[in-house]
Amino acid sequence: MITSLNNEKIKIYLKLKNKKYRDQEKLFLIEGEHLVKEALKNHVLVDLLVMEDTDIDFNYKIVSKEIITKLSSLESIPKMIGVCKFLDRKDITGNKVLLLDNIQDPGNLGTIIRSSLAFNFKDIVLSLNSVDLYNEKVIRATQGMLFKVNIMRSDLTGVINDLKKKDYLILGTNVRDGIDAKDIKNNKIGLIMGNEGQGVSPEISMLCDKNLYIKMNNEVESLNVAVATSILEYELGEL
Amino acid sequence: MITSLNNEKIKIYLKLKNKKYRDQEKLFLIEGEHLVKEALKNHVLVDLLVMEDTDIDFNYKIVSKEIITKLSSLESIPKMIGVCKFLDRKDITGNKVLLLDNIQDPGNLGTIIRSSLAFNFKDIVLSLNSVDLYNEKVIRATQGMLFKVNIMRSDLTGVINDLKKKDYLILGTNVRDGIDAKDIKNNKIGLIMGNEGQGVSPEISMLCDKNLYIKMNNEVESLNVAVATSILEYELGEL
Repeated sequence: MITSLNNEKIKIYLKLKNKKYRDQEKLFLIEGEHLVKEALKNHVLVDLLVMEDTDIDFNYKIVSKEIITKLSSLESIPKMIGVCKFLDRKDITGNKVLLLDNIQDPGNLGTIIRSSLAFNFKDIVLSLNSVDLYNEKVIRATQGMLFKVNIMRSDLTGVINDLKKKDYLILGTNVRDGIDAKDIKNNKIGLIMGNEGQGVSPEISMLCDKNLYIKMNNEVESLNVAVATSILEYELGEL
Repeated sequence: MITSLNNEKIKIYLKLKNKKYRDQEKLFLIEGEHLVKEALKNHVLVDLLVMEDTDIDFNYKIVSKEIITKLSSLESIPKMIGVCKFLDRKDITGNKVLLLDNIQDPGNLGTIIRSSLAFNFKDIVLSLNSVDLYNEKVIRATQGMLFKVNIMRSDLTGVINDLKKKDYLILGTNVRDGIDAKDIKNNKIGLIMGNEGQGVSPEISMLCDKNLYIKMNNEVESLNVAVATSILEYELGEL
C-alpha cells in the first residue's frame, strides 16, 4: 500500500489537478468506479489507485485514504481514482459534427458531450478558447461518454472550411431569427454552438450557411447552451 | 454608506446564505444586475445593496465592497445584491405541469426552470426532498426565470391525485421502455421527472398513466435530467 504523498507517482498524479501538467504529461485523472470502468472498456486507463479497505473485484495500486482525498476534487471522496492518457484525435468521419465556439462552463461541456453521443454527433470540435476538456467537472458531467466520441481542439475556421469543401451544411444558431431544425434536409451537418453569454462569435457566424432557431416563449431570452445543443442534436441527429 | 458587518440589516442578510434562515425570514438573496432587474420587474425585491463606486442608474443602499464580498457566493463578486421575498404559491392553472421528484443538483433545477418557462410549463411542483429553490446556484441557473413561473414545494402524491381528478394525463419517464412524446395527444399534462441517479421513485412511478422515452444511441444510458426535461417539454409544450 502506498501511503506517502512523496511517492514519485503520487507526486506526478497530484500535479495533474493542474491543466498545465495535464498538457505536459498528456494524462488526466478520473474519479469513481463508473468512470474507471468506462475508461477500462475504452483502453485509456494507465493507472488505478484504489483506497485502502475497499471491497471491489478489481484493483491495482492500494493507496491510503489521505492520498485519495488529496487527489480528489469531490466533497464526498471516491473509492478509486484512475489515471488516463489523453484521448486520440481522429479524422472527422461522421455526418453530424458539433463545433463549440468558446464554451466556458465545464458542466455545460460535459453535458453536451453526453448528449452528443446520445444523438450521434460523434465528432466534436472545441475552439481553442473553450474550457479544458480534461477539467474534472467536464469529465464528471460526461458520465464517461467522453471516451466514446471523437473530440479535438482546433481553430474552428480551418475545420469549418474543410467541412464546407466536403459538402457539410454549416448551421449556426440565432435566438430570435433563424429557421426550424425540422426544415433541415441535409444529411451532412456541422452544427455550431456558441459561448454562454455571447453566443457564436461574429467571425464564426459569418461562415454559417443558415441559422437555426428553437421556438420558445418570448419571455425567455435564451436557453442554457447545453439544453439548446441537445434539442438541436435531438432534431438533427440520426437515430 | 453602510460599512459595518454588524449593521442589523447586514447581519440578517448574511444569515440568508443559510437555508434555515431563509425559511425563517422568507427572504433570499440574488446577485448581479440581471437578476435584480428581473426581481424588480416582478415585484419581489425588498432591499437592494449596491457596491460603493458603482456607476448604475438605479441604486438603493450603498455598501462597502467588504459587505458585498461577504454576502456573495461568487468568485467574481457582483456589483449589487438584492434581497427578495419568497415567491407566492398560486393554484395550478396551466395545462402543462412539471413535477420534480427529488431533484438534487441546483444547476439542474435552475436550468429546468428556465426551460420550463421557455416551453410554457408554467406550473412546477417540487417534491419535499428536492434541492432548495432559493439555493444561490439554483437562482443563478434560472437566469431570472424563477420569478415568472408558479413554483410550489409539495408532497407529489397529493398533487398528482388532484391533477388526475382534473383530467391531466400523468407522464413518467423510462430510459429504455416508453412511448414517444410525439404520440401524446392530450392537452392537459403532468410530466414527472426524477432524481439524477435513481430516476422517478417507485411510489410516484406507480401513479403514472404512461411512460415517455427519448430515442437515443444505445451506448448512452441516460441524458442529463435538465436536458431530458427540456427535450420532453419542447415536444409537449404549447407554442
